[in-house]
Amino acid sequence: MKWGSSGDQHAEKHLSEQLNAWLTKIVSPDQATYDEAMSYIDTLTKPKGSLGKLEKLAAKLASIRGRQQPVVHPAAVVVMAADHGIARAGVSAYPQEVTAQMVLNFLQGGAAINVFARQIGAEVTVVDMGVASDVERLWAEATSSQKSSQFDASQLLIRKVRNGTANMLEERAMSRVEALQAILSGIEIAESTIGRGAACLIPGEMGIGNTTSSSAIVAVLGQRSVDEVTGTGTGVMGDQLTRKREIIQRVLDKQQPDASDAIDVLSKIGGLEVAGLTGLMLGAAAYRVPILLDGFICGAAALIARSLCPACVEYMIAGHQSQEPGHQIVLTLLEKKPLLQLALRLGEGSGAALAYPLLQAATHMVQEMATFESAGVTNKEE
Amino acid sequence: MKWGSSGDQHAEKHLSEQLNAWLTKIVSPDQATYDEAMSYIDTLTKPKGSLGKLEKLAAKLASIRGRQQPVVHPAAVVVMAADHGIARAGVSAYPQEVTAQMVLNFLQGGAAINVFARQIGAEVTVVDMGVASDVERLWAEATSSQKSSQFDASQLLIRKVRNGTANMLEERAMSRVEALQAILSGIEIAESTIGRGAACLIPGEMGIGNTTSSSAIVAVLGQRSVDEVTGTGTGVMGDQLTRKREIIQRVLDKQQPDASDAIDVLSKIGGLEVAGLTGLMLGAAAYRVPILLDGFICGAAALIARSLCPACVEYMIAGHQSQEPGHQIVLTLLEKKPLLQLALRLGEGSGAALAYPLLQAATHMVQEMATFESAGVTNKEE
Repeated sequence: MKWGSSGDQHAEKHLSEQLNAWLTKIVSPDQATYDEAMSYIDTLTKPKGSLGKLEKLAAKLASIRGRQQPVVHPAAVVVMAADHGIARAGVSAYPQEVTAQMVLNFLQGGAAINVFARQIGAEVTVVDMGVASDVERLWAEATSSQKSSQFDASQLLIRKVRNGTANMLEERAMSRVEALQAILSGIEIAESTIGRGAACLIPGEMGIGNTTSSSAIVAVLGQRSVDEVTGTGTGVMGDQLTRKREIIQRVLDKQQPDASDAIDVLSKIGGLEVAGLTGLMLGAAAYRVPILLDGFICGAAALIARSLCPACVEYMIAGHQSQEPGHQIVLTLLEKKPLLQLALRLGEGSGAALAYPLLQAATHMVQEMATFESAGVTNKEE
Repeated sequence: MKWGSSGDQHAEKHLSEQLNAWLTKIVSPDQATYDEAMSYIDTLTKPKGSLGKLEKLAAKLASIRGRQQPVVHPAAVVVMAADHGIARAGVSAYPQEVTAQMVLNFLQGGAAINVFARQIGAEVTVVDMGVASDVERLWAEATSSQKSSQFDASQLLIRKVRNGTANMLEERAMSRVEALQAILSGIEIAESTIGRGAACLIPGEMGIGNTTSSSAIVAVLGQRSVDEVTGTGTGVMGDQLTRKREIIQRVLDKQQPDASDAIDVLSKIGGLEVAGLTGLMLGAAAYRVPILLDGFICGAAALIARSLCPACVEYMIAGHQSQEPGHQIVLTLLEKKPLLQLALRLGEGSGAALAYPLLQAATHMVQEMATFESAGVTNKEE
């Protein structure tokens, strides 16, 4: 297939129009509802402002949902999985086969995200956006041979755009058409997940090599040096880390992504799961559903989403700050303060799932606390 | 009643012996279990160390409970309430009557701690350690006149040592005997709460004026200046804050508490709820039950408990760092890192209750995650 052929151009135009139709649906949350919610919170039986960031979070959720008493339950976790051609260059501490193995682990309910999702009563959907192996077949084999799991299986969706990205040291990671397809799949999954009742989306990911892609994206969109945005990922250190940084620099030198064109960035140096996450976030914003961000890879997807539609960022809440150094840069670019700082660096949506009870607490505060008047408590003399 | 009379000396000796019998039961958590738990955590399907502080928390809980797979559910919240004679000096933004009003609010389930406790499935016990009014009568009146609450009522325990402390600008807050009585009540409540099945204690408090008492305690036990350890409390600012600091300094000048004698400190400048919390913490430590610390007042009680028995601190987990400036000093003295930093300054146990889902997540991680071997995931080559 030749890039720039008229067939591709036609497909790209069609997909771009579909995407743009979604982007026009995204409008900023309602400031008036924020203010109303904050005024109401000030009537609750506690010194004004004494629940600190939780109060701001509650008002933020109110503005997102467009109602003074917002609801964020149930949440839904969507774990996007894909492989990266760059993994063959030795940028990760783990071999590429781990992506598919972890997908099976998600489906059996044994990964960290499954554990934390169960605790918060969230369903987990695992999406094959582009795993390099046949996940469906592997899962069928696994379920036929093994004893029934003690855990509920997660749902598996196949939205495989291609069998992993190309090695971006040699060619672009995916075509523009593929990038758009992956984004639109993400939007479609957001839509169906919200249609099933999800009031908060927790995007997660799995893909050996995806911190490499994410570091490249953050370097371009954040205009930072590779060294600033590149960390250990799953655990590369010393010479391996130096090599990872060199590879990312070589990728950027070769691909020359255009920071003003998010689809160019995504298609040249992105990942299929990153593209899926981008779509998931855009879809959630279009439906005024809060997006609880996990770590570094989610952050890279959030920056792509912001490039496509700045208003979508207002639907994002930063679950935590990862130990990956580039994540602080992402949060600064998104102008977000994280709810948790637990030195996590796992991904999968795990850090966001850990933060979710704080969103629930913020909404419960508004819904359930007595006011000074209703409880007959003497308020401070102002 | 004359201090130092032979009757008092006899009572004090008797109560001190009771307390000492409890203190001897407190032994350090088991380091071997910590190490075993950490080794097991390293076999779970995630890059080693990638769940950061949650992994250390899980191992810590294992060492506290003396088992590799610790359980912290259900938690129980115990809110100790008492009044402070010093409140009459105008150290708070709220009048003293708010203590009793908030006790009624707790009993009706309308306060922040009720909301957060419901979310985590924790019972709330409210203890009148020394409220200046007849809480039982007020509660009986309230329940006879009002419609049935939409919320479960909390349990009320009356352990009133006296009707609030004395004004410590004039005399010691309470006698040594009263301080010991209050501590032993706290231990007894820890024992009965744990006996009903609590696997984690969340101490909370309510008492108009209690940041003043706590600042005084932290100044003495932390050897810090009054200015360093005194903040806005429920919301005093400007001249009021200056006045609060001057009053605390005058209290310390008059009372000259002996930092090497925790009962001297508690009886001269403490609060009855602070003494109750001290006992609650000691009782939990004796039963090897984790204590999830809330904010500044809990921290002052923790410092008193540490003075009585340093090993008890090893059973404490810092739920959050309060906005009250003295709390950072408390955490430094206790050598604790907070789980949350949400600029809270409410008390009631609210910040600890918000942090509790992280303790659950840590234990669920150990109990439920697959290992590399069980899930057939290729581990990193070391």
